[in-house]
Amino acid sequence: MPVPNPVLYPAFNVIRLSHVELGVRNLAASRAFYADTLGLQVTHEDSVAIYLRALEERGHHCVILRKSEAATVNVLGFKVFAEADLDAAHTFFTAQGLPVAWVERPFMGRVLRTRDPQGIPLEFYAKMDRLAPIHQKYALYHGVKPLRIDHFNCFSPDVDASVAFYNSFGFRVTEYTEDEDSKKLWAAWMHRKGGVHDMAFTSGKGPRLHHLAFWVPTPLNIIDLLDLMATTGYVTNIERGPGRHGISNAFFLYILDPDGHRTEIYCSDYQTVDPDLEPIKWDLKDPQRQTLWGAAAPKSWFEQGSVFAGVASNDPVLKAQPIVAP
Amino acid sequence: MPVPNPVLYPAFNVIRLSHVELGVRNLAASRAFYADTLGLQVTHEDSVAIYLRALEERGHHCVILRKSEAATVNVLGFKVFAEADLDAAHTFFTAQGLPVAWVERPFMGRVLRTRDPQGIPLEFYAKMDRLAPIHQKYALYHGVKPLRIDHFNCFSPDVDASVAFYNSFGFRVTEYTEDEDSKKLWAAWMHRKGGVHDMAFTSGKGPRLHHLAFWVPTPLNIIDLLDLMATTGYVTNIERGPGRHGISNAFFLYILDPDGHRTEIYCSDYQTVDPDLEPIKWDLKDPQRQTLWGAAAPKSWFEQGSVFAGVASNDPVLKAQPIVAP
Amino acid sequence: MPVPNPVLYPAFNVIRLSHVELGVRNLAASRAFYADTLGLQVTHEDSVAIYLRALEERGHHCVILRKSEAATVNVLGFKVFAEADLDAAHTFFTAQGLPVAWVERPFMGRVLRTRDPQGIPLEFYAKMDRLAPIHQKYALYHGVKPLRIDHFNCFSPDVDASVAFYNSFGFRVTEYTEDEDSKKLWAAWMHRKGGVHDMAFTSGKGPRLHHLAFWVPTPLNIIDLLDLMATTGYVTNIERGPGRHGISNAFFLYILDPDGHRTEIYCSDYQTVDPDLEPIKWDLKDPQRQTLWGAAAPKSWFEQGSVFAGVASNDPVLKAQPIVAP
Amino acid sequence: MPVPNPVLYPAFNVIRLSHVELGVRNLAASRAFYADTLGLQVTHEDSVAIYLRALEERGHHCVILRKSEAATVNVLGFKVFAEADLDAAHTFFTAQGLPVAWVERPFMGRVLRTRDPQGIPLEFYAKMDRLAPIHQKYALYHGVKPLRIDHFNCFSPDVDASVAFYNSFGFRVTEYTEDEDSKKLWAAWMHRKGGVHDMAFTSGKGPRLHHLAFWVPTPLNIIDLLDLMATTGYVTNIERGPGRHGISNAFFLYILDPDGHRTEIYCSDYQTVDPDLEPIKWDLKDPQRQTLWGAAAPKSWFEQGSVFAGVASNDPVLKAQPIVAP
Repeated sequence: MPVPNPVLYPAFNVIRLSHVELGVRNLAASRAFYADTLGLQVTHEDSVAIYLRALEERGHHCVILRKSEAATVNVLGFKVFAEADLDAAHTFFTAQGLPVAWVERPFMGRVLRTRDPQGIPLEFYAKMDRLAPIHQKYALYHGVKPLRIDHFNCFSPDVDASVAFYNSFGFRVTEYTEDEDSKKLWAAWMHRKGGVHDMAFTSGKGPRLHHLAFWVPTPLNIIDLLDLMATTGYVTNIERGPGRHGISNAFFLYILDPDGHRTEIYCSDYQTVDPDLEPIKWDLKDPQRQTLWGAAAPKSWFEQGSVFAGVASNDPVLKAQPIVAP
Repeated sequence: MPVPNPVLYPAFNVIRLSHVELGVRNLAASRAFYADTLGLQVTHEDSVAIYLRALEERGHHCVILRKSEAATVNVLGFKVFAEADLDAAHTFFTAQGLPVAWVERPFMGRVLRTRDPQGIPLEFYAKMDRLAPIHQKYALYHGVKPLRIDHFNCFSPDVDASVAFYNSFGFRVTEYTEDEDSKKLWAAWMHRKGGVHDMAFTSGKGPRLHHLAFWVPTPLNIIDLLDLMATTGYVTNIERGPGRHGISNAFFLYILDPDGHRTEIYCSDYQTVDPDLEPIKWDLKDPQRQTLWGAAAPKSWFEQGSVFAGVASNDPVLKAQPIVAP
Repeated sequence: MPVPNPVLYPAFNVIRLSHVELGVRNLAASRAFYADTLGLQVTHEDSVAIYLRALEERGHHCVILRKSEAATVNVLGFKVFAEADLDAAHTFFTAQGLPVAWVERPFMGRVLRTRDPQGIPLEFYAKMDRLAPIHQKYALYHGVKPLRIDHFNCFSPDVDASVAFYNSFGFRVTEYTEDEDSKKLWAAWMHRKGGVHDMAFTSGKGPRLHHLAFWVPTPLNIIDLLDLMATTGYVTNIERGPGRHGISNAFFLYILDPDGHRTEIYCSDYQTVDPDLEPIKWDLKDPQRQTLWGAAAPKSWFEQGSVFAGVASNDPVLKAQPIVAP
Repeated sequence: MPVPNPVLYPAFNVIRLSHVELGVRNLAASRAFYADTLGLQVTHEDSVAIYLRALEERGHHCVILRKSEAATVNVLGFKVFAEADLDAAHTFFTAQGLPVAWVERPFMGRVLRTRDPQGIPLEFYAKMDRLAPIHQKYALYHGVKPLRIDHFNCFSPDVDASVAFYNSFGFRVTEYTEDEDSKKLWAAWMHRKGGVHDMAFTSGKGPRLHHLAFWVPTPLNIIDLLDLMATTGYVTNIERGPGRHGISNAFFLYILDPDGHRTEIYCSDYQTVDPDLEPIKWDLKDPQRQTLWGAAAPKSWFEQGSVFAGVASNDPVLKAQPIVAP
């Protein structure tokens, strides 16, 4: 399948990925991981949820940890340009036969809940509470010094379909892996905000979340995190890395939270704002697409992912199918 | 003056700053500076001009060095989203009473030449020759490992007017310095591409180019450049830095090329894609706005700038004035 | 004066500089500086003194902060190879007509107190309490991540004499600045432990301590400290840097504690264990000896130093003179 | 076996490891690896050998590449303090029943050739040609920016015996791995120059050279080398890393030259000049001793080593045995 062209004037204007809500079984353990170890800043916490932001962010939260019976991903959140884009999104998803609902969410204005055709729960909003800048409050920096949420990466049972769908509302492909034999997409990286990706898809049993990712200033921050995790009881939570991906040129590290949710720590991608940026094509047989250098990924990295709430990972929700209201 | 609101639907869609053409008196000396020392890659050279790109860029050039009798800045270039935006820009600048012309430029498609009301020569284009990626050809990296052109910074005799003008076609203010007494803008940083700035203005005799800037991966690359320049005959070309600006949070270095054109080497700014990003206001009396830490800027840094071709720096071209056709 | 030759078999074997005792007027303020900001680890504290070590050190302390009416430097400490070296040192200093005394010091074995001919109070020991390693307890690392005390630098009214004296018990010169006209030493760097220096002397009213220094892993740790100090009320405590010295090749930063005692944060010197290492000579007229690159040093850096307890800085204690017992 | 005590006054004074001579099958291929890729500086080359030094070194060479039929390690070189130490070494090795010979070596003064009891070919010298400093000629820096040779690591069939032997002439143990069951040493790190090691031994078929190592300024230089090797045809020469060892705290990378000789690139160890530095003991069952974090070492890393010239690796030369004259 040829990579879709950029959509010049999409139905609604998604600015960037924004936040994720993770179902976690033990709030204290997750807080120790995300706040004390990674260095995210707590912006609100109560008995059922903890809200966190990264150091450079002014929006209220990029991660919500919600007390849950099971490890799940409750929703992936995206920010749109203006309120009118929310209404346009409502029209767009409705027209696709996908479930839509306006939901109440703390710290946010109007929120549109829906799912993509595979069943991934999504929410869109234009306004979230804005907090005072802390990016120059250097006394707050610790852990890996996470600056901002960078992207989501999901397993998809049909990457061609996932890419076509997100492209239809303006996500552009920056890099992709093609199976030379079948000419089907194996994986693709898609962006709105001008980096390599806001959202990526990889072939696999799904939909499931492969990982969320945080942007950090330099590779040395990642090495600092490795030193810290290796000596504070988290050594087995280090899954893969450090290394460099061929795709995206990222200097990366993959770690697992106490529930097995995977986080990538990441730096070194590149600016992609040009609408005529040619997507980079990688051959599925080229091992350097995944690992420009570094140890081979372990089996777990290829196989494990977080299940989305309300959808069985081996039972992808198709476009025409009735699904659980979000 | 209050900082202007973001323009939701500007008359034409500028994607980013793109390139600058510098008039230089000695091509070989300038090549030694920009290619051999900074590490920009030569993409074309002939007897009158050298074209260069940074390591991450796919467009043909971000700097043109043109043999000249005098050190001048010939034009600042910007990329627009689509061809239709060029026509819209033509309409826009014509309506403003500013000079417009379609010009032939090598390696580029249609190019619209104009000037801003202060007289700064500008060119807009949608298409430039695209080159194969080299960002993973690590054998090419040397010098400061420049990844991309990042921004321009200009002296303006009327920052309020400059900001209002660029805001009128969609540039958004991210940070600004206000004189608490006069309530006039002293300086402002404006962007299109999602960083702190594509274009900044500072009060001063003008219009003149204060500096162009390149983005590099980490502060260590800047330290490497300092070591290199200090031991290869360029020690007096180091003007200011390293240090950190309060404004933009940049880790910075300012250097002068053989003609005195100033370049900033830069890393550590932040993502500004949110349309509701609140501009950060700095008081003109706060010395940390300029220098969060680091030695005070030398007098030259406040006073010297590059003259734009076709406009006397002490004779700012005003909106209603007839100016030399670009 | 020619630089003295290395002494093959010195009278006693000094291993390295070890510690300094600073008189400080406010223990809490000094603790906030050295422990909370720089990141030294407190190993003992009581109502009159705080003992600190750096992250890589196993000896009990490298800095003692002692409550004092005035800002003074009470003593510079050095470790010798074996107990026999202490007795040999006793003999050596006695023969020089210098004051000697065995003193009781907490956390240390036998301690020999003396002064050098300029009056600098010195103490030598072979045994100090050893603590468990913490260099891999990465959760403790913060501030500038100081790994070890690196050197002392003193003003001397007669650098030739200071160098000759320390050379007489085995300190070797690695680099020096000579006044081409007078052929007198302006400054010299001398070592025992295999780096550029354990002890350096610069011409100036003295004896006074110009600075003590800590070794850190990379320049980025120094940049982190600058960011921290600039945003936690210590911006005026940043005196000079960052920059690179020609002499020693150090990437440096100079900061002032609440009493005005100066600390250098330092990385990038080189290994000097070869006995035939040729000292590097610098001309006093070469500005790059001091500043390979970076802003010029402020006046304070040339003029201010910490007074040693028991000796007036403008009244240098000469060899033959009776001095206050240490 | 208890770790041997430091020898206060060894029979002769070894200052540091100095150089290695590698037998290589293709000088041009080896030059491309060591000079063009790693960044060592060629100080002499002819039709049969290439001499190289690292950026900070003043001695003429730290690596000699000698054209050879087979990949061998011809000799490990060490520098002693003074000429008298060479004579004392001659006496020492003779008394041990080990082969001794004075040999002619270019660029060096008197050279004593011998072997250790396992058969490792050694040479000792006091004087080598000294070259002008280049550590501030930053234009020469490229590749991994190697500053100095750091250590050798050898497979030994009897680590207890190897450690006892090197300890007998003054090498001190800094860290070691003990088999808790047999109480035998599995591996040990020994130094003279004040770092973690000049020489290390690991249990294995031997004697063979496991690796030589170079010291570099920061982890980022190692990441730069990985990027370079991965994109210039050397990706399969990357054997292990990056990672951090528990032992020595090194941030490490292991790479293989065109003949399979292994080099470690290394930073972050610590100062060990204190004679009372307690060796750190690691349990053979603790996986973090080897890999504080990072991927597990591949099988090749445990099994492959370079054979020393004149000794079969499976036929260790014992102390009493007649061996080939060096």
